[in-house]
Amino acid sequence: MHDSKAWSGRFSEPVAELVKKYTASVTFDQRMAAFDIEGSLAHAAMLNKAGVLSDEDLAAIRGGMAEILEDIRAGRFDWSLDLEDVHMNVEKRLTDKIGDAGKRLHTGRSRNDQVATDIRLWLRSAIDDIAGLIAELQTSLLDLAEQHADTVMPGFTHLQVAQPVTFGHHMLAYVEMLTRDAERMQDVRKRVNRLPLGAAALAGTTYPIDRHYTAQLLGFDDVCQNSLDAVSDRDFAIEFTAAASLVMIHLSRLSEELIMWMSPRVGFIDIADRFCTGSSIMPQKKNPDVPELVRGKSGRVVGHLIALITLMKSQPLAYNKDNQEDKEPLFDTVDTLVDTLRIYADMMRGITVKPEPMRSAVLQGFATATDLADYLVKKGLPFRDSHEVVALAVRHAETQGVDIADLSIDTLRTFSPLVDEDVFAVLTPEGSLAQRDHVGGTAPNQVRAQIARHRARLAG
Amino acid sequence: MHDSKAWSGRFSEPVAELVKKYTASVTFDQRMAAFDIEGSLAHAAMLNKAGVLSDEDLAAIRGGMAEILEDIRAGRFDWSLDLEDVHMNVEKRLTDKIGDAGKRLHTGRSRNDQVATDIRLWLRSAIDDIAGLIAELQTSLLDLAEQHADTVMPGFTHLQVAQPVTFGHHMLAYVEMLTRDAERMQDVRKRVNRLPLGAAALAGTTYPIDRHYTAQLLGFDDVCQNSLDAVSDRDFAIEFTAAASLVMIHLSRLSEELIMWMSPRVGFIDIADRFCTGSSIMPQKKNPDVPELVRGKSGRVVGHLIALITLMKSQPLAYNKDNQEDKEPLFDTVDTLVDTLRIYADMMRGITVKPEPMRSAVLQGFATATDLADYLVKKGLPFRDSHEVVALAVRHAETQGVDIADLSIDTLRTFSPLVDEDVFAVLTPEGSLAQRDHVGGTAPNQVRAQIARHRARLAG
Amino acid sequence: MHDSKAWSGRFSEPVAELVKKYTASVTFDQRMAAFDIEGSLAHAAMLNKAGVLSDEDLAAIRGGMAEILEDIRAGRFDWSLDLEDVHMNVEKRLTDKIGDAGKRLHTGRSRNDQVATDIRLWLRSAIDDIAGLIAELQTSLLDLAEQHADTVMPGFTHLQVAQPVTFGHHMLAYVEMLTRDAERMQDVRKRVNRLPLGAAALAGTTYPIDRHYTAQLLGFDDVCQNSLDAVSDRDFAIEFTAAASLVMIHLSRLSEELIMWMSPRVGFIDIADRFCTGSSIMPQKKNPDVPELVRGKSGRVVGHLIALITLMKSQPLAYNKDNQEDKEPLFDTVDTLVDTLRIYADMMRGITVKPEPMRSAVLQGFATATDLADYLVKKGLPFRDSHEVVALAVRHAETQGVDIADLSIDTLRTFSPLVDEDVFAVLTPEGSLAQRDHVGGTAPNQVRAQIARHRARLAG
Amino acid sequence: MHDSKAWSGRFSEPVAELVKKYTASVTFDQRMAAFDIEGSLAHAAMLNKAGVLSDEDLAAIRGGMAEILEDIRAGRFDWSLDLEDVHMNVEKRLTDKIGDAGKRLHTGRSRNDQVATDIRLWLRSAIDDIAGLIAELQTSLLDLAEQHADTVMPGFTHLQVAQPVTFGHHMLAYVEMLTRDAERMQDVRKRVNRLPLGAAALAGTTYPIDRHYTAQLLGFDDVCQNSLDAVSDRDFAIEFTAAASLVMIHLSRLSEELIMWMSPRVGFIDIADRFCTGSSIMPQKKNPDVPELVRGKSGRVVGHLIALITLMKSQPLAYNKDNQEDKEPLFDTVDTLVDTLRIYADMMRGITVKPEPMRSAVLQGFATATDLADYLVKKGLPFRDSHEVVALAVRHAETQGVDIADLSIDTLRTFSPLVDEDVFAVLTPEGSLAQRDHVGGTAPNQVRAQIARHRARLAG
Repeated sequence: MHDSKAWSGRFSEPVAELVKKYTASVTFDQRMAAFDIEGSLAHAAMLNKAGVLSDEDLAAIRGGMAEILEDIRAGRFDWSLDLEDVHMNVEKRLTDKIGDAGKRLHTGRSRNDQVATDIRLWLRSAIDDIAGLIAELQTSLLDLAEQHADTVMPGFTHLQVAQPVTFGHHMLAYVEMLTRDAERMQDVRKRVNRLPLGAAALAGTTYPIDRHYTAQLLGFDDVCQNSLDAVSDRDFAIEFTAAASLVMIHLSRLSEELIMWMSPRVGFIDIADRFCTGSSIMPQKKNPDVPELVRGKSGRVVGHLIALITLMKSQPLAYNKDNQEDKEPLFDTVDTLVDTLRIYADMMRGITVKPEPMRSAVLQGFATATDLADYLVKKGLPFRDSHEVVALAVRHAETQGVDIADLSIDTLRTFSPLVDEDVFAVLTPEGSLAQRDHVGGTAPNQVRAQIARHRARLAG
Repeated sequence: MHDSKAWSGRFSEPVAELVKKYTASVTFDQRMAAFDIEGSLAHAAMLNKAGVLSDEDLAAIRGGMAEILEDIRAGRFDWSLDLEDVHMNVEKRLTDKIGDAGKRLHTGRSRNDQVATDIRLWLRSAIDDIAGLIAELQTSLLDLAEQHADTVMPGFTHLQVAQPVTFGHHMLAYVEMLTRDAERMQDVRKRVNRLPLGAAALAGTTYPIDRHYTAQLLGFDDVCQNSLDAVSDRDFAIEFTAAASLVMIHLSRLSEELIMWMSPRVGFIDIADRFCTGSSIMPQKKNPDVPELVRGKSGRVVGHLIALITLMKSQPLAYNKDNQEDKEPLFDTVDTLVDTLRIYADMMRGITVKPEPMRSAVLQGFATATDLADYLVKKGLPFRDSHEVVALAVRHAETQGVDIADLSIDTLRTFSPLVDEDVFAVLTPEGSLAQRDHVGGTAPNQVRAQIARHRARLAG
Repeated sequence: MHDSKAWSGRFSEPVAELVKKYTASVTFDQRMAAFDIEGSLAHAAMLNKAGVLSDEDLAAIRGGMAEILEDIRAGRFDWSLDLEDVHMNVEKRLTDKIGDAGKRLHTGRSRNDQVATDIRLWLRSAIDDIAGLIAELQTSLLDLAEQHADTVMPGFTHLQVAQPVTFGHHMLAYVEMLTRDAERMQDVRKRVNRLPLGAAALAGTTYPIDRHYTAQLLGFDDVCQNSLDAVSDRDFAIEFTAAASLVMIHLSRLSEELIMWMSPRVGFIDIADRFCTGSSIMPQKKNPDVPELVRGKSGRVVGHLIALITLMKSQPLAYNKDNQEDKEPLFDTVDTLVDTLRIYADMMRGITVKPEPMRSAVLQGFATATDLADYLVKKGLPFRDSHEVVALAVRHAETQGVDIADLSIDTLRTFSPLVDEDVFAVLTPEGSLAQRDHVGGTAPNQVRAQIARHRARLAG
Repeated sequence: MHDSKAWSGRFSEPVAELVKKYTASVTFDQRMAAFDIEGSLAHAAMLNKAGVLSDEDLAAIRGGMAEILEDIRAGRFDWSLDLEDVHMNVEKRLTDKIGDAGKRLHTGRSRNDQVATDIRLWLRSAIDDIAGLIAELQTSLLDLAEQHADTVMPGFTHLQVAQPVTFGHHMLAYVEMLTRDAERMQDVRKRVNRLPLGAAALAGTTYPIDRHYTAQLLGFDDVCQNSLDAVSDRDFAIEFTAAASLVMIHLSRLSEELIMWMSPRVGFIDIADRFCTGSSIMPQKKNPDVPELVRGKSGRVVGHLIALITLMKSQPLAYNKDNQEDKEPLFDTVDTLVDTLRIYADMMRGITVKPEPMRSAVLQGFATATDLADYLVKKGLPFRDSHEVVALAVRHAETQGVDIADLSIDTLRTFSPLVDEDVFAVLTPEGSLAQRDHVGGTAPNQVRAQIARHRARLAG
């Protein structure tokens, strides 16, 4: 080879320096090196089984690759921009080490199916990490929910006090979201875990390859069934980033709440100092930086989703160089998600819940008005009429500046003669909570049952 | 009720006209009416089973709803903006018809869980339609693939001629994409098909409801396990729209190809006149409007995806009015997808494939250069050296303005002495195709095997 | 013409019904009818001036168009799907009315440049409406700012109390944002206001047209200088939607604040009943629906932006049918923005500000800590050291559950001997405000100066 | 200071390591260092003029900063993660060097207004670079247009041959797009070039600052007029990224065309080898990597736009940590745009245009059918009737497999008796071109006039 490129024989002038930098991917795709080597070793083993590669060549490749992997891990590998990408860097080093056997490794494959294999191996591993981190965050939330299965707080709709709930119940809402996130990650994983190798450049290869054998060696569930699709498909990257966006959107919602709850006017929680920072000018400040950054980083991941979708729009088959742009958004999505989940699991353990302000907030917002309406319904009033009665009572209480529980029995009776002394039992937050005792309801025993269900699921 | 609103008792002034228009959803959510009624009937049956609603009330509700449904289907139902949404319009009519029993229907539920139930019922039905339409389009593509399992065309990478493939093989790439789309729709469906009803406003209800019974009546697989999550979750809408975006992106790719293939300079296909339109100024024009619009409409669906994700970003729990903005993007996504799939299935049956231009394109692009390289490898040259040899031969042929198959044996031997007379067999498109004979390869018998596999899957 | 289409001569089969529906735009582009007619009349006048159209034909066209416009305005015009779009519907009607003169109108133009002209005329008019509505909203905000130029409220960073500001100052931040929005709309308008007509299908026309004359008749500043660009350019739609997205993002921020301020725990404001709605289940609820919907609708407009960008990505020149998909996102963006601005201007007049809770919130958050630091700096301490001293004082006050203003002079001196009796003057909210007396600062007289500046600008 | 942080006095535990990494920005914001120093020097000069900072302190700060800048430029500056960001790193080093004077620099400002100032200075400089690069690319395109002002190529609509244009005219369409891009960059620059410094944390400062003086020193046109807005505004980043997205979308369109034109079946152009790469498996391949990557990178920039918009959605005032997430998308947008413009300007100089294939493509597509229609109109037929006549002639020619110019005069007369011998002059591509002789038309002399206009503009 008169030049380091894999393809220069046909060309009459070298690639411009600026072009080299613009088109090379080695600066970012080197992080897939271990998976590139894993894929190459499986490919070599398959070629050997198929009679295309000799035992000697296979042994030499294995030996050379083991050294290269060690060099990479030790930070001794010198990545060359001239060699464009991780694949050519590794293969060139291999050939330097073991000679012609290295040149035979690329038999029956192309960089098009090779990179598609690498990225799937890399992403599969990332998904498995993420699954573990989701479970870890869920455990943090379950611990917090358990401590506060009885802690009364206002449930909000439209950020207006709606009905009492428990803080544990509120935390469980996020456990549910994360459970769906975990399901989605598994759904994505099914479609990631299919082998493109063997598609070669786009049409398959003339060698007697055994793709199912390679798939088996690499732990893939199946092979991609069409070579054109195999090299050009980036659905899995989009699908993963969409699932990651949903995780981030969920955490942006929780972040929004943490930030608001920690605002002094609300004062429902405190976040441990080690997750906060101060101000360079205002000495009193303690800022919830972590949830704020998480909220901000949700945009980052959504941006990557759009980058990937835009990338694929209207691309003709099969592989086009555009596809090289899949990696940076995908890598950054994984990094952002992994860091965020890890820090969030830790931070939720550093939350101090303040039951007193929560309870007073419940009492400020007519939170048990629905309970009064239900009380009247149980006494025989149709729901819509009962709703109207209570609305008028609330309006009266509001003008008096008191809660409806503070109105006298006589006053309440002016709104409906059905009211009796037993009404006050349903007008306490605890009475309200206890009555919402069905699957999904906020009654403390339902909250505990859900915690147990989730713990069993996570243990399973 | 002194006013038509469900909640006016607490208010001291009526809603402004502009606000009414801005906040009302009945103009678009009336399309869920049948599902709203279906949900209400299941809710009523459950309330009755739980002893909360009498047999007489249940019977009255069933009778009233049957009439309302008929009115709606006949276009006789007069939707009122004052009544805000589909739920209040239906309930008000019911109460007008049957009196107090109608007012009792809303016992133990809220519009928050009601609308979440409606939209899930509606979307589940839409997904089932879409699944059928995807299968129909796949059948169109399989028919076309079968007719052209042997038709040679250039396989492109970077829009440069790469290697010969068959048109059938090319069509199968899209069948694969659509298969993943169908899988994704089923994955989404699992998470759509869970019952939020029973979450009431946000915290559950004080009535002894049986959510699993309601779920069973409505064909839901499970119930939503947390009431706060149940009323605020719109993951399913985002997830569906993400899956729909991928379908549209796939069809934008096929559209891009159809448009290019029909361009006279390429001339690979013709699209039947009934899918094309002309020009108001250029009398000769026949334009592939349908694939162009499909390509354009991919942006529309991606836009809806972003609308929905942005909608949910940073929303605190539980239900906020923002969520009402989920419907129009979702409705339009379904409409766009359904229309597009339907028209595409039909249009692919109207494609005329032109094998001659396809074959000449193969011969213009040195499409069998890789076959020559593989030939040399099989004669003992390492792949990388063989690649270099062929690159130089191609460069020579290009300067002569001929294909490598047109070079004489003597000329070929100047590049490598390993070349023999048998080389010309591998340099024909058909020879090249036939050799790519493994799972996923373009060899005609592999293409036929894939067609059979897909037909069996669709029949299954 | 043997068929209603403008182009059917070349076709051997009619367009399929489904295709007709899929490709027709008349259902949505009819709203541009008045602009289509305005453009046609200018085109006809120019053709007449150029000697291409006779005086009689021009008179007939003017007469026919006047009738058509009246029919459209009166709702009497019967739009036909078979005629595809607004242009053909109008032209066909014209020809029905006036015969051959109508057929001559399309001389020297194409639907490609015609639709580009219509949409620019329509958008220019919409921008002018929007400019007026932005000014109206700014006036609402200025009125509110003026009433509360001295009203103390906590300024937040990270949603933690930072320093005292006035409510007027806070409102002015949004006036600034809207001022930039107005500037952007004017910048967009420059690029909207150029005439594409005369580009014909894509290459110009063989008639001796005078584009500058047409431009002058239609009030365009200039003509599009390249015919291929003229028919394919949709920059203006993207640029407008980006500017509209920023308006919506600003209003989503204000909405977020209004919602939070109206939450009972914060209690800074109340929104008039006529902008709120209640709950079907919770009788006490008064929900800030309008700001919630605005927050939600920000996603809608951002979605349209992405739809339009995706639409244009990778389109080859010149006009492609994809471009027809520009209209619905653009129309809905304008509608959403116009409705939102209108309702917002009205709603801000219905805000009740509650100074008491605002003032107590200031006192809960060590809002004057920076003032203490500045005080010490003025006594000679370097800022960084002073910051450290005050941080320790705040930490002490926090453990005591008091504000720093409540610490005794002796206690304060334990942190720094520089503290003197005059310190308490700077520790009041009013003292803090008054000192921030420079351009852009929150001192009440600065706030009033800004109000005056904006009023003058709006009057100008 | 007992710790390196600017704010640790109030905190009882140190920031967790993971949090430090998650919240620090120094890894990416250090690239603004020179602008941070420039801003600090202007701030110091203003403080000195205002009597807040002594001459000695100012001199010390200037000396220290000069050394620091030199260290940074020489790569000798050791950035510390513990010091969070570029601001604290620089200030700490300054204080190490010059003592208390360094601690006084932060008087009357906050990191909130400091970072907003830095990013605006940085972006202003980037916009100026981009303006130069846009002009350079336009010059490349104008050179190419000039060489090919007469080169006939098919003008396409719907990728069908529409009418002849010149290659020069086609290139000018992109010059127009880039002219709008340049205008937009200048519009953005106006809003970037306003000074936030002086807003301090959010409310202004108690020192007698002179913001207009600082603005003048830094070359800002004006000051931000509201302190809350000044620290929280990121409109300029969104607006810039929207403008950058449009540039990339334009280049994605040109890239799409270059890729298609270089496809062997089309064969209109060749791209110099130095901008292309080959295949590791297919020896004959020469791939247009650069335009493919540009097309792909358009998604990247659009993704950043969405990241930034999502970031700002619903943020309450004033500064929140979310805003730190503005930098990476903005930096990468600038880098991508700068690299792309630079490489594109160079690549367009390496384009070989092939007039022969272009001319034959014109003759394959009935490109002069409109000219025939116009010919008949000029002989008296109404345009719509003429269109119909030509459509039938085209249909006839198509069945014969010939161009309409190849039909005999007798055959043409069967479609219309108005046809005469002079018809053949209008049926040549050159005849067609020459007649489109008005502003914006494709006639070669119009193309040359446009080139001259643009050259004058760029020289101006």
